[in-house]
Amino acid sequence: MPLPLIAVTMGDPAGVGPEVCLQLLANEEVRTFARPVIFGDLAILQRCAKQAGLPSPEASSVRDLTFFDDSGFEPGVVSAKTGAAGYHYVIKSIEAAMAGEVAAVATAPLNKEALRAAGVPYPGHTEIFADKTGAKRACMFQYSDEVRASFVTVHCGYHEVPALMTLERIVDVIELTAAAMRRIRGTEPKIGVLGLNPHAGEHGLFGNGEEEHIIIPAMEIARSRGIDVEGPIPPDTAFLPARRRSTDAFICMYHDQGHIPLKALAFDTAVNTTLGLPIIRTSVDHGTACDIAWQGKATGSSLVEAVRLAVKLATTPGS
Amino acid sequence: MPLPLIAVTMGDPAGVGPEVCLQLLANEEVRTFARPVIFGDLAILQRCAKQAGLPSPEASSVRDLTFFDDSGFEPGVVSAKTGAAGYHYVIKSIEAAMAGEVAAVATAPLNKEALRAAGVPYPGHTEIFADKTGAKRACMFQYSDEVRASFVTVHCGYHEVPALMTLERIVDVIELTAAAMRRIRGTEPKIGVLGLNPHAGEHGLFGNGEEEHIIIPAMEIARSRGIDVEGPIPPDTAFLPARRRSTDAFICMYHDQGHIPLKALAFDTAVNTTLGLPIIRTSVDHGTACDIAWQGKATGSSLVEAVRLAVKLATTPGS
Repeated sequence: MPLPLIAVTMGDPAGVGPEVCLQLLANEEVRTFARPVIFGDLAILQRCAKQAGLPSPEASSVRDLTFFDDSGFEPGVVSAKTGAAGYHYVIKSIEAAMAGEVAAVATAPLNKEALRAAGVPYPGHTEIFADKTGAKRACMFQYSDEVRASFVTVHCGYHEVPALMTLERIVDVIELTAAAMRRIRGTEPKIGVLGLNPHAGEHGLFGNGEEEHIIIPAMEIARSRGIDVEGPIPPDTAFLPARRRSTDAFICMYHDQGHIPLKALAFDTAVNTTLGLPIIRTSVDHGTACDIAWQGKATGSSLVEAVRLAVKLATTPGS
Repeated sequence: MPLPLIAVTMGDPAGVGPEVCLQLLANEEVRTFARPVIFGDLAILQRCAKQAGLPSPEASSVRDLTFFDDSGFEPGVVSAKTGAAGYHYVIKSIEAAMAGEVAAVATAPLNKEALRAAGVPYPGHTEIFADKTGAKRACMFQYSDEVRASFVTVHCGYHEVPALMTLERIVDVIELTAAAMRRIRGTEPKIGVLGLNPHAGEHGLFGNGEEEHIIIPAMEIARSRGIDVEGPIPPDTAFLPARRRSTDAFICMYHDQGHIPLKALAFDTAVNTTLGLPIIRTSVDHGTACDIAWQGKATGSSLVEAVRLAVKLATTPGS
């Protein structure tokens, strides 16, 4: 049986995307479990290979979209033009996955400011994939050996979080996460649900009762559907070593509640995936890192892990 | 010169306070740098020593306040009575420190629900110490070898944070933290200030502009007063290893922004101290842990570190 074909987007041309894609293609271990195809511009990959001192890509490993005009382009500097290109690669990879031409999509980083400059009406990948695939419910899920977490809210302001934490949304995220962990581990997972307030509200002492009125009722619904949930966990003790080991995945209420421990504990190896889509999509867990882009300094390990998880999800029954 | 006398409060009698105090008294290393005196009830310490299999305390190491009536008392179960006792020990230790009878106070954990049941009008130690010592400005500071952090807000609901983040408050916390680190390290510290929103707002993309309108102006005032500040740092990348090493202390906007990484990275060794008081006060970085109280399972290392930092702050010039 041929290895699964994985679409890998090149990311924003100005960021570290091109070089982590080049590293991926040069990685011999990757060739033992996947056939990656870079969705991007071959000319940019070749220029980046020269500048960053990396092997030039074989043309057969690149879906050359010949979209980006690199006249006047300066590596490390994002713009409306680089944002539009990064977005185009994503759209083409989604089309390929929806058409069944590839088994999954793994994405290199986009830049949120460049997307906005290009007039793209989404803050990031998660929202693009959810909308373009017509997913009814979707959520960000971060996977690493050390810790795994899903997000009820992600790219919004701090103050917007409480209003976005609806009972339905929390139940959706718990269900999507339990299903993903069941597929990855093959056993019934234990899901830990975090509180919103310090000490998970300490029985109503802090906050507007979000734990009692929203989180606990959502957990009860999930439990009635056969999911092993525990919580609401005080956010600051959720990620202690013993709890990390006994919990298959955490449900986080907002971006930094989960991203702070993920980055502190599993930087460079965490993989971002979007649950609830009709296709499989994983991503690196880092940004465009323009300050080091095209200098041969970026570490490609997160993209390797993203492709590894994409293959796992694409080849496991039930996916 | 005699070693510094450190008042150590016994904490809520129902929690792990009594046994970590007993462990402290039995610790031979501690006797090389401090003379701890437990502010609590001798009868409770003796009863706990028996039950948890720890050495009984010497009477000379205890300031026996004979306050708590233990008839009907069940270890591990907090109540209005245990809350009132824990509070009484704190008040007596503050009086002793204000009178110069002890060089510093190190506190064992109180229970917030027990305090409330007892009608104590403070959510925790930090607020009690600030009010009872008449401190004009004070803040929580967490110290560990791995990472150090101060807090602009602490014990309040998630939704209350943005309104409490005033420019003056942030400047106060930066100044108090820089002064403490100068005393501890003897050099001019680098202070990292975190943003409030995901990605520190990504230049206004997320949030209400708290970074631009409050945090950056506060940093500019601190800089004009000679403090080396950097930020606003995206919260999720603040605690990556390289940044942790290059930053003497972080300024966090809310409880879990700092407590999540502190507990994940430095559990059992972090010490909590209140900056800005006319006296020195440190504390363990754990709660009453009633589920394991009086069973000989608690780890006393955090209290040892609290006494060590108290001695350091009490014996360094400029304190």
